[in-house]
Amino acid sequence: MDTWTHVDERGQGVRMVDVSAKPATRRRAWAEGHVRMSESTRRRLQTEGSPKGSILETARLAGIQAAKQTGWLIPLCHPLPLDEVRLEFEWTDEGLRVEAFVQAEARTGVEMEALTAVAVACLTVYDMCKAVDRSMTITDVRLLRKEGGRSGRVQFGEPRLVRPSDADG
Amino acid sequence: MDTWTHVDERGQGVRMVDVSAKPATRRRAWAEGHVRMSESTRRRLQTEGSPKGSILETARLAGIQAAKQTGWLIPLCHPLPLDEVRLEFEWTDEGLRVEAFVQAEARTGVEMEALTAVAVACLTVYDMCKAVDRSMTITDVRLLRKEGGRSGRVQFGEPRLVRPSDADG
Amino acid sequence: MDTWTHVDERGQGVRMVDVSAKPATRRRAWAEGHVRMSESTRRRLQTEGSPKGSILETARLAGIQAAKQTGWLIPLCHPLPLDEVRLEFEWTDEGLRVEAFVQAEARTGVEMEALTAVAVACLTVYDMCKAVDRSMTITDVRLLRKEGGRSGRVQFGEPRLVRPSDADG
Amino acid sequence: MDTWTHVDERGQGVRMVDVSAKPATRRRAWAEGHVRMSESTRRRLQTEGSPKGSILETARLAGIQAAKQTGWLIPLCHPLPLDEVRLEFEWTDEGLRVEAFVQAEARTGVEMEALTAVAVACLTVYDMCKAVDRSMTITDVRLLRKEGGRSGRVQFGEPRLVRPSDADG
Amino acid sequence: MDTWTHVDERGQGVRMVDVSAKPATRRRAWAEGHVRMSESTRRRLQTEGSPKGSILETARLAGIQAAKQTGWLIPLCHPLPLDEVRLEFEWTDEGLRVEAFVQAEARTGVEMEALTAVAVACLTVYDMCKAVDRSMTITDVRLLRKEGGRSGRVQFGEPRLVRPSDADG
Amino acid sequence: MDTWTHVDERGQGVRMVDVSAKPATRRRAWAEGHVRMSESTRRRLQTEGSPKGSILETARLAGIQAAKQTGWLIPLCHPLPLDEVRLEFEWTDEGLRVEAFVQAEARTGVEMEALTAVAVACLTVYDMCKAVDRSMTITDVRLLRKEGGRSGRVQFGEPRLVRPSDADG
Repeated sequence: MDTWTHVDERGQGVRMVDVSAKPATRRRAWAEGHVRMSESTRRRLQTEGSPKGSILETARLAGIQAAKQTGWLIPLCHPLPLDEVRLEFEWTDEGLRVEAFVQAEARTGVEMEALTAVAVACLTVYDMCKAVDRSMTITDVRLLRKEGGRSGRVQFGEPRLVRPSDADG
Repeated sequence: MDTWTHVDERGQGVRMVDVSAKPATRRRAWAEGHVRMSESTRRRLQTEGSPKGSILETARLAGIQAAKQTGWLIPLCHPLPLDEVRLEFEWTDEGLRVEAFVQAEARTGVEMEALTAVAVACLTVYDMCKAVDRSMTITDVRLLRKEGGRSGRVQFGEPRLVRPSDADG
Repeated sequence: MDTWTHVDERGQGVRMVDVSAKPATRRRAWAEGHVRMSESTRRRLQTEGSPKGSILETARLAGIQAAKQTGWLIPLCHPLPLDEVRLEFEWTDEGLRVEAFVQAEARTGVEMEALTAVAVACLTVYDMCKAVDRSMTITDVRLLRKEGGRSGRVQFGEPRLVRPSDADG
Repeated sequence: MDTWTHVDERGQGVRMVDVSAKPATRRRAWAEGHVRMSESTRRRLQTEGSPKGSILETARLAGIQAAKQTGWLIPLCHPLPLDEVRLEFEWTDEGLRVEAFVQAEARTGVEMEALTAVAVACLTVYDMCKAVDRSMTITDVRLLRKEGGRSGRVQFGEPRLVRPSDADG
Repeated sequence: MDTWTHVDERGQGVRMVDVSAKPATRRRAWAEGHVRMSESTRRRLQTEGSPKGSILETARLAGIQAAKQTGWLIPLCHPLPLDEVRLEFEWTDEGLRVEAFVQAEARTGVEMEALTAVAVACLTVYDMCKAVDRSMTITDVRLLRKEGGRSGRVQFGEPRLVRPSDADG
Repeated sequence: MDTWTHVDERGQGVRMVDVSAKPATRRRAWAEGHVRMSESTRRRLQTEGSPKGSILETARLAGIQAAKQTGWLIPLCHPLPLDEVRLEFEWTDEGLRVEAFVQAEARTGVEMEALTAVAVACLTVYDMCKAVDRSMTITDVRLLRKEGGRSGRVQFGEPRLVRPSDADG
């Protein structure tokens, strides 16, 4: 029933899926990911004021920039004109949780943009902390919710980046 | 002892770390990651011949291209002239395992290049299969081994991409 | 009558042409190109199963990625939000024929995107086969058909990438 | 004997070839390509002063920029630190001839950089003249000469971009 | 009253501003900048025919290309589909004046695109003349006029790149 | 005596200068630039804690990223493997002063990288503050000092980013 949309129906190779018949509608996606780290690394990140600030801020910008590059980074993605990208961080028992929210008016969804933002933000945290702890892992990168398009709202988890204005989105 | 290498010693903000005093030596890194998926998605990917081939091949190329872009994608990474990039896939009970190997002669390690290759290959698998299964997660992206530089060989797991010629690397 | 659209009317230098007064309409373009190679190279490419597959698949992806980058690669092109990119390969007496199809809703045509996809796919085939045959040439890269915009359908050759849904495009 | 260097020996997919064991030596490559156009288009390009200048100058810059991007545009190419890129144009009976010269100190050759420079310069000429003549073709893009590396000098045609200093290269 | 639009209202870090509620309207921006140089450098640039032409032409193309890359170069800018980019040069008593004009139909203004075009064109002039004069400065890069959006026309200086068709814009 | 290095000796167009005969040596460059703003804008930036932090931090990262892209942004620059990039900010009577320091082992200088880092950091400050003050200007972007290469140390101003380890550079 569901098909490998990126693979030609005659099985002759990949393609960028034709979205020309779809209307451009409001698309939103939320994704999350985690950097699992040792207790001591997490505590240092949380308590050493200034580095903490700039490490998370750098990861946030890396995630925003990556969201905008998704259409070139992921080979069969369509480049999309994003209207908003946000990232938020939260400390957990196992390390750091990253959440991204992306929206655009487009003929295709923005899940890949949200997932890419999360993955690159996590890689950036790893990069900036690797001199302290090389055994961190990036884990549970997944879609939380998507809105818009034929499938409407699909939900797999609870996003935190929900603002009043989204309530009736 | 270990310090936040990317943060200025006076705490005034991030920087691209000075590597000018380090000699350029042979650097190698292996990393892995996983796309966890449902039993049925995995079986379809494994058995439907042509799509399988082209999906993994696309993910492989996305990973290679991403490794080459790491120095721009991760804000404080140094762009490095890579000598080799390889990716390999393996089916597991939980889905797909991706391994990347990267090497270069450089003043700094190539861990980020290997991790970025893995993360982007996983995102590409997600992108190509998302019409079939949106609940996949990208997980356990981590460094397996690194060689070269002051810290010599550091090992966290067992890479598969070891060829005879690497034995005495 | 026809003018050098990219050159300022006062002859003072190039410019990115003003397309603001044109409506955004459905644009389609088909282009082709050829990699001329020796009989023996062609036979090896055709018969050695796995390499053949991955070489053409790599060229296909390179062409898709290049189409998406056309607006930055060709200095005076407008970046366009592409709705679909396809490439197809065919063996000929002289070597390999590459055809690309691109479509978008835009204020300007997508000929350059189709031609760029073809040229970069041909370059990629050359790159992957050059250890076997350095005397290949890339030849007869040309527009086959364009649709949309003021000039409507313009045809120079017969595309193969025509699907039922295009018939009344 | 000669092998598909970009395809894994076990036939499991493409890879970026390992060049780590090769010494970095002086590499040079010359390539050419042609934009075949109607007599009248060629005459307009040749005689209408200012447009001619700026069209060729734009194509030259596009070719230089493309040479520098080859390592990312062609999926399995190694990004190389180029020491020089030059392009030259010449009117022929059939239209325009483009020649590119590239050099670098590298572990692998610079043929792809020279061929890519030529192809993108030809595409740029097409782009700037397409309002006047859409039936142009880009043709006979090929390697003229390469120097350096294990195979030494390999010659397929006569470059024009040879300067005194190259004589004993 | 006016707020730091790129900083989260809860002060938790930067973000790409949400423009989803704004209508896409015609946006135009004009910006200028100056390369201040010595009398003798300016005279050489003005009188030595061919270099002058190609230096300004190269700067013009660099500015056009930079305008198209603004959404990725400036971290929190939205990538915008530009309809037109123009640059013009003028000799002044103190050196060279660069003016850029950009327009698009977008949910946000194109000031950054015009300013980035000017700044990169000035940097390119510096690059091409630095062997002759290293003491040049790039100065007075500023917005001249913007049109479209909620704030309507805002004017800080007198643009030269005004054409009849703009009069009733 | 001094020549337009980027223009062909026969006056036939621009080129990427041949640096192949130069040895790769340690190159360093310092540059500065200023964002001139109203007293009230400056005071808000200085006193409103969190926004200030993130605005400067964002500009810093934009400058670092831009330094790494200089070889593609400035058409005739050589892409260089940078060993370090730093940016620092300082409040002045007229607004904000930005200083950048860049170093690499290369066949050509890194002035353009330092100047580009400064210019893009200034543009980023403008972008983030433009909702508050559109009349800011970017001014006095200039080289402060360069070291390495045939011309040795050349000095035009006093850099602040001098650390003990540079003293004998």
